[in-house]
Amino acid sequence: MGERSLLNQLIDALRCLPGVGPKSARRIAFYLLERDRDGGAQLARVMAEAMVAIRRCTRCRTLTEHDLCALCANPQRDAALLCIVEQPSEVVALEQATDYRGQYFVLGGRLSPLDGIGPDELGLNMLETRLRDEAITEIILAISPTVEGRATAQLITERAARYGIRVTRIAQGVPLGGELEYLDSGTLALAFAGRRDVV
Amino acid sequence: MGERSLLNQLIDALRCLPGVGPKSARRIAFYLLERDRDGGAQLARVMAEAMVAIRRCTRCRTLTEHDLCALCANPQRDAALLCIVEQPSEVVALEQATDYRGQYFVLGGRLSPLDGIGPDELGLNMLETRLRDEAITEIILAISPTVEGRATAQLITERAARYGIRVTRIAQGVPLGGELEYLDSGTLALAFAGRRDVV
Ligand SMILES: [Zn+2]
Ligand SMILES: [Zn+2]
Repeated sequence: MGERSLLNQLIDALRCLPGVGPKSARRIAFYLLERDRDGGAQLARVMAEAMVAIRRCTRCRTLTEHDLCALCANPQRDAALLCIVEQPSEVVALEQATDYRGQYFVLGGRLSPLDGIGPDELGLNMLETRLRDEAITEIILAISPTVEGRATAQLITERAARYGIRVTRIAQGVPLGGELEYLDSGTLALAFAGRRDVV
Repeated sequence: MGERSLLNQLIDALRCLPGVGPKSARRIAFYLLERDRDGGAQLARVMAEAMVAIRRCTRCRTLTEHDLCALCANPQRDAALLCIVEQPSEVVALEQATDYRGQYFVLGGRLSPLDGIGPDELGLNMLETRLRDEAITEIILAISPTVEGRATAQLITERAARYGIRVTRIAQGVPLGGELEYLDSGTLALAFAGRRDVV
């Protein structure tokens, strides 16, 4: 089987998936070819489009193929509540786990000066514009309780204070140092419901 | 996030991959979108082509985008040796693990009358044509040592006997009831080198 065969190209290309080594890639390639070509073809179509068309929402910075994501474009969402998360995946997780009906803002990371991640990289100017111009009454911090996460939360709390906005953070059930993305839905829902004021 | 968003379509489509549930699909989608769009786009291109273009080799029944696979088309492969495997993935595994330089034949399964898998489904007529017409001196059975695999090997051994062809099977290191596909390379190489005549 020459190195350039389409099958080998497929096996190589599958290794871009997280956690997929040479053996898993081979197994996936044969599984699709022998048992689910329709699924593979559909995945290829959607993936090709997604890699090109999905960008950041111009308002909340989550991932979307539109200028405004479906949440920002939805007039039924409560404009007084703004939940701040680190990653777009956490927006999806919170939407699935909770009955929250407010808005979101996606930082895209945590403050980490040594890695070159400062307020600009996290969109804090964009956030402050929203705090100033919109009728936000509560900011809900859904940020991982790590050292960097706490520093990030602290900075946001200071900015919110300039506009007299209440700041809460999700609390109950988030394990110390835990990543929100890997929490089960039940724990995440509890944590969200149990949010409390930041002192 | 509406059910129809491109992001949700991508997450849904990723579930066609073996062993990928809703959480893994979400994780993979965000990984590709945030960290490896080039890899994702390349995978989409290759996968789209592979799902359409890859068919069975008309001679050995392995997967290939050509009429004849690279192995069948290679005049340097020893035409006197024919290794018989169950699945195309095992051709790849043997090529990587051993220095075998003969030909292959892919059954596509094991005899299983209750599942409607008989000699026709395994291409045994096609195999017998090769046994009759080609200068094959040894058949190497690389078939999983399960009950159905043994029945399959038995049937092939009977057919080979009609043409006076020696039949060996790979032996050392294949665990009882084990699937060849999941063997490590070293064990597979040992088993291949340690093949012996079928009584
Ligand atoms: Zn948005
Ligand atoms: Zn072939």
